[in-house]
Amino acid sequence: MENIALSPLTGSELNMIWIIWGIALVAIAYGFILMGEITRKDSGTAKMIEINNAIMEGANAYLARQFKTVALLVVVLALVLFFTGTSADPAVNLGRAIAFVLGATASALTGFMGMRMAVKGNVRVAAASLKGKVEALTIAFRTGAIAGMFTIGLGLLGATTIFLIYKENLSSVLVGFGFGGCLLAMFMRVGGGIYTKAADVGADLVGKVEKNIPEDDPRNAATIADNVGDNVGDCAGMAADIFESYEVTLVASMILGATVFGNMGVIFPLLLRAVGVITSIIGTYFVRSKSETEPAMKPINRGFMVSSILSIIGFAVLTVMYTQGSIFNIMSTDAKWANVLAANPDANVVLAWKLFAITTIGILLSFAISSMTEYFTSTETKPVQEIAKATLTGPATTILSGTAEGMESSVWAILSIAVAIASSIIVFAINPIGDAVLVVEQTLYGVSLLGLGMLTVTGIIVAEDTYGPISDNAQGVGEMAKLPEKARKVLDELDAVGNSTKAITKGFAIATAVIAAVSLFGSYKEITGMQYIDISNPMVLIGLLIGGAVPFLFSSLLIRAVGRAAFLVVNEVRRQFKEIKGIMSGKQKPEYGKVVDICTTAAIKELVGPGLIALLMPVIVGFLFKAEGLGGYLAGVIVVGQLLAVYLSNSGGAWDNAKKFIEQGNYGGKGSEAHKAAVIGDTVGDPFKDTAGPALNPLIKVMNLVAILIAPLIIKNPGYGPGVIAVVVIGLAIIGTALFFSKRSDDSGIADEVAKAVSGKGKKK
Amino acid sequence: MENIALSPLTGSELNMIWIIWGIALVAIAYGFILMGEITRKDSGTAKMIEINNAIMEGANAYLARQFKTVALLVVVLALVLFFTGTSADPAVNLGRAIAFVLGATASALTGFMGMRMAVKGNVRVAAASLKGKVEALTIAFRTGAIAGMFTIGLGLLGATTIFLIYKENLSSVLVGFGFGGCLLAMFMRVGGGIYTKAADVGADLVGKVEKNIPEDDPRNAATIADNVGDNVGDCAGMAADIFESYEVTLVASMILGATVFGNMGVIFPLLLRAVGVITSIIGTYFVRSKSETEPAMKPINRGFMVSSILSIIGFAVLTVMYTQGSIFNIMSTDAKWANVLAANPDANVVLAWKLFAITTIGILLSFAISSMTEYFTSTETKPVQEIAKATLTGPATTILSGTAEGMESSVWAILSIAVAIASSIIVFAINPIGDAVLVVEQTLYGVSLLGLGMLTVTGIIVAEDTYGPISDNAQGVGEMAKLPEKARKVLDELDAVGNSTKAITKGFAIATAVIAAVSLFGSYKEITGMQYIDISNPMVLIGLLIGGAVPFLFSSLLIRAVGRAAFLVVNEVRRQFKEIKGIMSGKQKPEYGKVVDICTTAAIKELVGPGLIALLMPVIVGFLFKAEGLGGYLAGVIVVGQLLAVYLSNSGGAWDNAKKFIEQGNYGGKGSEAHKAAVIGDTVGDPFKDTAGPALNPLIKVMNLVAILIAPLIIKNPGYGPGVIAVVVIGLAIIGTALFFSKRSDDSGIADEVAKAVSGKGKKK
Repeated sequence: MENIALSPLTGSELNMIWIIWGIALVAIAYGFILMGEITRKDSGTAKMIEINNAIMEGANAYLARQFKTVALLVVVLALVLFFTGTSADPAVNLGRAIAFVLGATASALTGFMGMRMAVKGNVRVAAASLKGKVEALTIAFRTGAIAGMFTIGLGLLGATTIFLIYKENLSSVLVGFGFGGCLLAMFMRVGGGIYTKAADVGADLVGKVEKNIPEDDPRNAATIADNVGDNVGDCAGMAADIFESYEVTLVASMILGATVFGNMGVIFPLLLRAVGVITSIIGTYFVRSKSETEPAMKPINRGFMVSSILSIIGFAVLTVMYTQGSIFNIMSTDAKWANVLAANPDANVVLAWKLFAITTIGILLSFAISSMTEYFTSTETKPVQEIAKATLTGPATTILSGTAEGMESSVWAILSIAVAIASSIIVFAINPIGDAVLVVEQTLYGVSLLGLGMLTVTGIIVAEDTYGPISDNAQGVGEMAKLPEKARKVLDELDAVGNSTKAITKGFAIATAVIAAVSLFGSYKEITGMQYIDISNPMVLIGLLIGGAVPFLFSSLLIRAVGRAAFLVVNEVRRQFKEIKGIMSGKQKPEYGKVVDICTTAAIKELVGPGLIALLMPVIVGFLFKAEGLGGYLAGVIVVGQLLAVYLSNSGGAWDNAKKFIEQGNYGGKGSEAHKAAVIGDTVGDPFKDTAGPALNPLIKVMNLVAILIAPLIIKNPGYGPGVIAVVVIGLAIIGTALFFSKRSDDSGIADEVAKAVSGKGKKK
Repeated sequence: MENIALSPLTGSELNMIWIIWGIALVAIAYGFILMGEITRKDSGTAKMIEINNAIMEGANAYLARQFKTVALLVVVLALVLFFTGTSADPAVNLGRAIAFVLGATASALTGFMGMRMAVKGNVRVAAASLKGKVEALTIAFRTGAIAGMFTIGLGLLGATTIFLIYKENLSSVLVGFGFGGCLLAMFMRVGGGIYTKAADVGADLVGKVEKNIPEDDPRNAATIADNVGDNVGDCAGMAADIFESYEVTLVASMILGATVFGNMGVIFPLLLRAVGVITSIIGTYFVRSKSETEPAMKPINRGFMVSSILSIIGFAVLTVMYTQGSIFNIMSTDAKWANVLAANPDANVVLAWKLFAITTIGILLSFAISSMTEYFTSTETKPVQEIAKATLTGPATTILSGTAEGMESSVWAILSIAVAIASSIIVFAINPIGDAVLVVEQTLYGVSLLGLGMLTVTGIIVAEDTYGPISDNAQGVGEMAKLPEKARKVLDELDAVGNSTKAITKGFAIATAVIAAVSLFGSYKEITGMQYIDISNPMVLIGLLIGGAVPFLFSSLLIRAVGRAAFLVVNEVRRQFKEIKGIMSGKQKPEYGKVVDICTTAAIKELVGPGLIALLMPVIVGFLFKAEGLGGYLAGVIVVGQLLAVYLSNSGGAWDNAKKFIEQGNYGGKGSEAHKAAVIGDTVGDPFKDTAGPALNPLIKVMNLVAILIAPLIIKNPGYGPGVIAVVVIGLAIIGTALFFSKRSDDSGIADEVAKAVSGKGKKK
């Protein structure tokens, strides 16, 4: 893959790149401006600042330990990448290793900044709620926009810089960059996901269910850990995750673009991204309530719509520039198009509009996915209300109903992706330009542009997503600091809206994962030089079966990890209630720090097993079942990963909102039997929607990129020599050990102790 | 596919076929003998006979209505098959249509006989329990064996007869026969599954949860319906399902065998089956307790082991006959092997042992699958005990724990299938016989023999499975008829063992589905004449994504159907408790018939939508995305279908037994909070394990066979002419309508009424 024939950059091409580079810097600068603006805002009473400091401390401590743990792995992998590099030029291999480290760092940094600003934002939103909704919403959304700006700025900057430096070795180095981003995102998703849900489930099981005290009640020792979890899971994890999606869609389309159209094929995706940066910045200005009475969701949707429409206009402008040929010309720089152009002088114009069409379809797809997610998870629509109705016949029917709705939502999501991919086929099959092979290449490039189109307004998407935990935590801070009723009402509304925005952005992230994976799949075939990957070949089928199993294994491990960690939290909170007598009366403060420590240790510990599996499985499958088998494996991971991710996320979201629907006073409202059943549904959904589901998204891409990275090694080592056998055996041994420890921690003794204690209690009843 | 070059049968080949035919008749005759034996047994007190008659009546009524509904579809499809037949010889097309009807009839008959004998057996087992365990177990197992004998007898008879009549047109007609069997099995699985779980869940929700009366209490109006459900779901559905697996593995290997080895490639699978028939009959004689104290599981395992070992010996004998060349010779009848034999005179001997090896691996795979299922669902092992421990922290952790265990079990099941397929690759790749193409063909034939090997002792497997509901119902009859304590204890033990045998045979059925589907996949490629099905081709990828979605859609529809039907049952049982005052005191009898009617109507109604989807989806995908897309679709269905089926079945089984584990006195035993949580887990698991999970098994094969049937039409109609568009539009319209009605029945008004009533109750609390 190192030898893509890119011609030297022309003057106008170079100019374009510098412009894109400048726009990336603008995004980062704008991020800093927003940061200053937010930091200057009032951060509330001493009580609020105290709570906030505790959250900040816990979040910092967690991220520091996580980065330390992952850093070791990053260093090891950087060395592996360097020494296994297949380029003849060591500078390229070194570049790939460095790009990997940079990608990982950028991803970590995005997550860290997102989290840090969110924590700062929480308390300021809570303070602003005293002044009213307009101010509170603006602060909450702008804080989220900081993370958004860093995501798009760093992402675009990195990719552009790599292109400037490595040119024809672009692919190899870009894959390193993308891999670094994905890997970190996966770890932040997995670790953060386990942390946040262990704290949340643990807090709920003792607080809401056993002690009957409200959520975020300061008497619950797990409260601070719960809030820390929201920040390290939803903010840091999600920001890193979207950064990675943003990056990988870009990487995939640049690699495919280089093959199909040469320089301009690479620059075009960068230009699209630059348009998105500008429209995202403009969009953030439209997120401002017109009055205190306007529902909070409206301005957010306005910002999203404005950005999207402006982006489509921007794309159209780009296209007109193509068709005029006045500035640049897709086919001009690549020799293989000379014949096509000679036969059909209009080809360039037609192609430009095709690219426009497919990118716009990407934006439409993002609307489709977000409407669908909203339909399946909003309190206003039938699925959630069906689940709420099912609570009347108890927890079992609640679970069954949510399972059915979640599974169905997954079907529609995958169908809309299938339709989008089909549209790429149709767009490029009508009046085809060039021979059949060229058309297939264009189609794959088109698919990668779909992903790019979907993530055009990433700045807004990240802002929306980060807004979720900010408003959630602001509400928590408000509750703990006992703010007046009016302010609390403002915060409640912002929080409810945050649940929707979080669910919607999760839908995006997952859909882009599939689109990105499909385009990476195209790159995989290019790199291995295979003519086809025949699923009826038993080797490929075996790969497909194993690949399909991995998302199930991964989900199973993560759900179990949350359960185990939550068990420890439950135990600790129970202990504190028992041993610190003054907690319930409010006379004594619980030891929040202990729960924070437990969550941190548990999350870091649980992170290792699944991470190693994600890294090593493609290696083992690749060496055992060769490039064909690994191709089947990737297909299996994509299809099952997508189905499971949407199912887990949406069923979880739906259960959460079914509970909210009942809390609005339906079917008996809070405290009724129906509500109890809904709480159980919500608790089941917690690790579904916030741990396992979203972790599958980076998992799919990590595996894809590992496959692309090791493909040249697999091709170089056919058969089953001692080296191949050694890799497989060592890989299996590591995975076996990881699985063993992952399952063994059940027997820490604590679980059994608690079991015994409770079982005694059960008998006495 | 009509033109496989089979040479005329030689004298010795014809003799072999007549012998096989005779052995099939022996199985059927033995079934009749057992039937007479059972019928003559004592059928207990008048009270027991009365209960039994009610169950029989309900079951007959249900099956009659189901057959009537499905018969219409069978007739329509037979006509479609006849008129769309692509053979030049109308006799072949007619043969295919007739074979389809016969396959459907045989499947229905097997199910019906299984159910009928099971109902007769229930009461006789209950009566025999008064005499002791040895007698009761023998009757229960022998009754199951009747269904087993009809399964293997009819299956072998049908396939052999078709071969005798149609010879070189074998494939086409065999596919019709297999399709008929699968289709009926799917409907019986779906309908029976909805029926049984609607009654079960409905009975439990009111009886156990609300009224606190035990299972099978005659005061519960849903009791008889629950018992009827066990018979129409577990007996009729499962027997039809295994019949179909038995048939399809045979069909797949005969089709592939014809291509690779000519006549002997077809006869060899029939011979293997004949060996299995004999060893199954012998095995049933070993299922007899040595004493009243021997655990009931032991003799059943003994029978299974004896049959399996005898089968391996039988296979070895067959192989020696090959190697001696004294009786028959695989390669002798097919011209294409002449060169191979000339170059390597030992090829025949080596090949014979390879076939022996792969068939034996099939038997070993059946052990692996059954041990794994037992590990994940037995009360004695860690997974179930972990779930039981999770009940201590409430229903939510119970569900999460079961989900994690179920997902993991699915991973191991699919890995063992992957290993088995890999072993076929290895066996045929070491000292390969013939060129690369021939080796691939042998490998695929090997995979089909794996499936054949797994189902060698089908007679015993069906007996084990049918034993489950017989012992379950016998226990129910015992409870309702208030048998003395000693007899009840015997029945309790038999029932517990039945849970294990049921789970194990379900594991078989699903694993063979995948193996059979993989071999059918091979036939699909042959038929379409495609060189390869390239997953990186966007059309194939789209097919893969849609195919993966179908099992999710199907499961979602079935789970929802059970929920809806159960809701109706709950409503009716509640009404009866309210309106018929004397029920609780036992003075008045509830109206059992009403609940039976409700279940029957609901199951038939809910059956149609999923059934149409299964039939039409491959047609739509095939015409839209062509043969390649349909290939991807099948691969998606296989991988996701398998993962989901095992997950649903095993998590359901594990929850069931976690409840049993607690009822054995752990964690507070019956009535504790832990037990309540476990009951909720069990209720969630009910439609997982008895409706959605097992229905996926025939679904996978129905879709595969539809694909094979329509493949020639797809090839004949390339592009998107008006005919193709019409088929797609009509197909989509029918599916849309089915989906609409499937979802609409929510609004029957009853649901809302109940919701309102209960919601009022909730508020009062």
